[in-house]
Amino acid sequence: MTADRIALAVVGTAYHTPTPDRLEVLDDVVFAVTAEGTIEGVHAVGSPAAEQTMAGAADVHRLTSTQRLIPGLVDLHIHAPQWPQLGTGLDLPLERWLFEYTFPLESTYADERFAREVWSHMVPTLLAHGTTTAVYFASVHEAATLALAEQCAASGQRAYVGRVAMDHPVGTPTWYRDKSAAEGIAASRRSISAIRAMGSPLVQPIVTPRFVPACTDHLLRGLAALAEETETLVQTHCSESDWEHGAVIDRYGISDTRALRALGLLRAGTVLAHGNHLGDDDLGVIRGAGAGIAHCPVSNAYFANAVFPVRTVMAAGVKLGLGSDIAGGAEPGLLSQCAHAVTVSRVLHDGVDRRLDPHLRGVVDSRIDAVTAFHLGTAGGADVLAAPVGRLQVGCQFDAVVVETASASPLRAWPGIDDHARVFEKIVHLARPADIREVWVAGRRVDATRITG
Amino acid sequence: MTADRIALAVVGTAYHTPTPDRLEVLDDVVFAVTAEGTIEGVHAVGSPAAEQTMAGAADVHRLTSTQRLIPGLVDLHIHAPQWPQLGTGLDLPLERWLFEYTFPLESTYADERFAREVWSHMVPTLLAHGTTTAVYFASVHEAATLALAEQCAASGQRAYVGRVAMDHPVGTPTWYRDKSAAEGIAASRRSISAIRAMGSPLVQPIVTPRFVPACTDHLLRGLAALAEETETLVQTHCSESDWEHGAVIDRYGISDTRALRALGLLRAGTVLAHGNHLGDDDLGVIRGAGAGIAHCPVSNAYFANAVFPVRTVMAAGVKLGLGSDIAGGAEPGLLSQCAHAVTVSRVLHDGVDRRLDPHLRGVVDSRIDAVTAFHLGTAGGADVLAAPVGRLQVGCQFDAVVVETASASPLRAWPGIDDHARVFEKIVHLARPADIREVWVAGRRVDATRITG
Repeated sequence: MTADRIALAVVGTAYHTPTPDRLEVLDDVVFAVTAEGTIEGVHAVGSPAAEQTMAGAADVHRLTSTQRLIPGLVDLHIHAPQWPQLGTGLDLPLERWLFEYTFPLESTYADERFAREVWSHMVPTLLAHGTTTAVYFASVHEAATLALAEQCAASGQRAYVGRVAMDHPVGTPTWYRDKSAAEGIAASRRSISAIRAMGSPLVQPIVTPRFVPACTDHLLRGLAALAEETETLVQTHCSESDWEHGAVIDRYGISDTRALRALGLLRAGTVLAHGNHLGDDDLGVIRGAGAGIAHCPVSNAYFANAVFPVRTVMAAGVKLGLGSDIAGGAEPGLLSQCAHAVTVSRVLHDGVDRRLDPHLRGVVDSRIDAVTAFHLGTAGGADVLAAPVGRLQVGCQFDAVVVETASASPLRAWPGIDDHARVFEKIVHLARPADIREVWVAGRRVDATRITG
Repeated sequence: MTADRIALAVVGTAYHTPTPDRLEVLDDVVFAVTAEGTIEGVHAVGSPAAEQTMAGAADVHRLTSTQRLIPGLVDLHIHAPQWPQLGTGLDLPLERWLFEYTFPLESTYADERFAREVWSHMVPTLLAHGTTTAVYFASVHEAATLALAEQCAASGQRAYVGRVAMDHPVGTPTWYRDKSAAEGIAASRRSISAIRAMGSPLVQPIVTPRFVPACTDHLLRGLAALAEETETLVQTHCSESDWEHGAVIDRYGISDTRALRALGLLRAGTVLAHGNHLGDDDLGVIRGAGAGIAHCPVSNAYFANAVFPVRTVMAAGVKLGLGSDIAGGAEPGLLSQCAHAVTVSRVLHDGVDRRLDPHLRGVVDSRIDAVTAFHLGTAGGADVLAAPVGRLQVGCQFDAVVVETASASPLRAWPGIDDHARVFEKIVHLARPADIREVWVAGRRVDATRITG
């Protein structure tokens, strides 16, 4: 270690989940962070390396004894323009919800001023919830999309920002679609260039065909070629609901996953949102491609017609993270989604209908716990993106959140009662913006708009 | 109206749900509240009655144009001593969870000082979440139970506080039980007297046999007689999980509901927690007795082995409210439970297992919306208790919550996008303590410890 490279030393006790089944407690350590935001060392307080780090660092930040550091959350699936409808419009199935609520709202982002107003509210709010990495569907509008990328860079959020491409004459309305496949591809190309031209180390573009039912073959193939040519990640929806899953089979005679592969969109790092209706063979295809899945537990309860089988997908070796699916998922932030992932896994395990025999009610061995859920929300999501975040270990970026555990909040560590494992579980289930005292991205403290009351 | 009786006038726009399927918007009205906290009039701003109220009231409070008034929430089921384990210990089934986590914690409330420390953190925190009426299981300890009642009175929370009675030689551990049925009955009698001796208009006792498996017949019958003699409400658990439901059938050869009726505990106003495994005939028995049910959606996902069939229970004419079931339900406050009630109703409707035919997966016609859920969390719970709260109408107590809809919070009303129905839905799904600006109980503003940060 060369102490003179250390820009920041953060001292305190941290929790992270480097693997799905293990909570690692880093008790009283010093994180040595370079000017580029990389964790160069994790040293026990009092060790020579710790002393050297603290002596050489330009900035030393100490957590209080009741604060805990956790990795920032990685939200793999956010529809940014749906932010104003968060918490509403949950009464329709997906195919009607899109046309009656969502497309009309998204179409208004032709107004760049309105877009900037929403982004300036949304991005700091999500940071205040601990979402340090966000994967966004923007709208079809290039200006609104670039404005979102600019907002993320300005607010200091690590982000993947995708201009939405959609051109299908039946799957989209005349008043909210690309004029043609060629124009959709060209607009996506320009959007990639514009976001890259910002030169932000935190923000990058992502190729974003909305989903198969909203896109023509021409558009889908063109976007695949664009991703290949420009070396850009891809995101789309896959086998979300009975309707969406079935629509792709009706169109191509093969599953959504296989169709995306045939179209060239199932690439290493492709983020597939939802995937509730994936078959076992689809999982092998996804694993083979090096793509990953964004599990969106709250949204799924409203739109997916089934509970996502986390254990099955993990057992198949598929990369897996979590998404809030704003606004299909009526909650912001990813910590609460971790808790919901635990909850819905229990419902999947036990089933729903009291009139059935307990052994026939649910899907046994479906339960996950807070450790696994938090892993998905941090390291799991990072692995889907191959992003160096999600773990508080050497080589990762210092994207981290400081949580208070001794306030008037329900999230309180009780002396003599709560050990580290319990405090961690409380953080997963109870932490809210009011409990999040600081947010760091790439070693820089983010000035998130605090949600106070 | 005699304006000189009006102690408080509150001016603003309010939402409430007097019936399960109707949101009533009280747009720009004045609530006339007596010194006893009763709503004596609801007048349109500008009307002569409104003018007279505002002129005559000792105190006039005006909401801002972005604030909304809603009824305070009625939480029908809280285990107060489990507060320190909120958010933890969710890995075991109910029968093990009790012995390995919960009974050990509850037994520590023999220490009254510790009890007071917990109550002084919990009660203001729940008020800050908008819980204006709380139905508490305390512990077996009389001192801790009385201290809880005192805390509720001091904090200004409307509360039903029950000393827990439990004496079964198998269903409870030697180190946490009443010494005998007779002693349990005597202690419960003393607890009722002590709470009534406080003379608080807000706080009353409630007879609280934990549940059938934890109590001997002697204790259960004695508590029924005590409730009858002292005219005290009763609360207990009923048909919560496969295990608990089955244990009562094993013991008596009849359902939990029928057993409680035979024992004399199923009375008008009895609060039955959970009820997930109630049969159709049980519902008729409960309706006939005038008892009600506390539906606890989050807890049920962890401990009940099935989703509570809200629509079925409502169609049977059974009184129904909501409970957080702290700490089985790993969230404080009842607004989020309203949202969860909507969510789990959707999962019940759709089912969980993607491998099944959609038509065989769930239980059709199970969905409820935010209006119905909020009705359950306010008026529904009030009706179970026959308490004059839960609606913002003449004759009810002014128990109300002021919610802000224009801050940095995700709960934001967007001008030109959100109408009243959408803002209401956002409140149900997104309101958090940071959004709750004021809490009123019986016409008095509560000084809830604000959760800031």
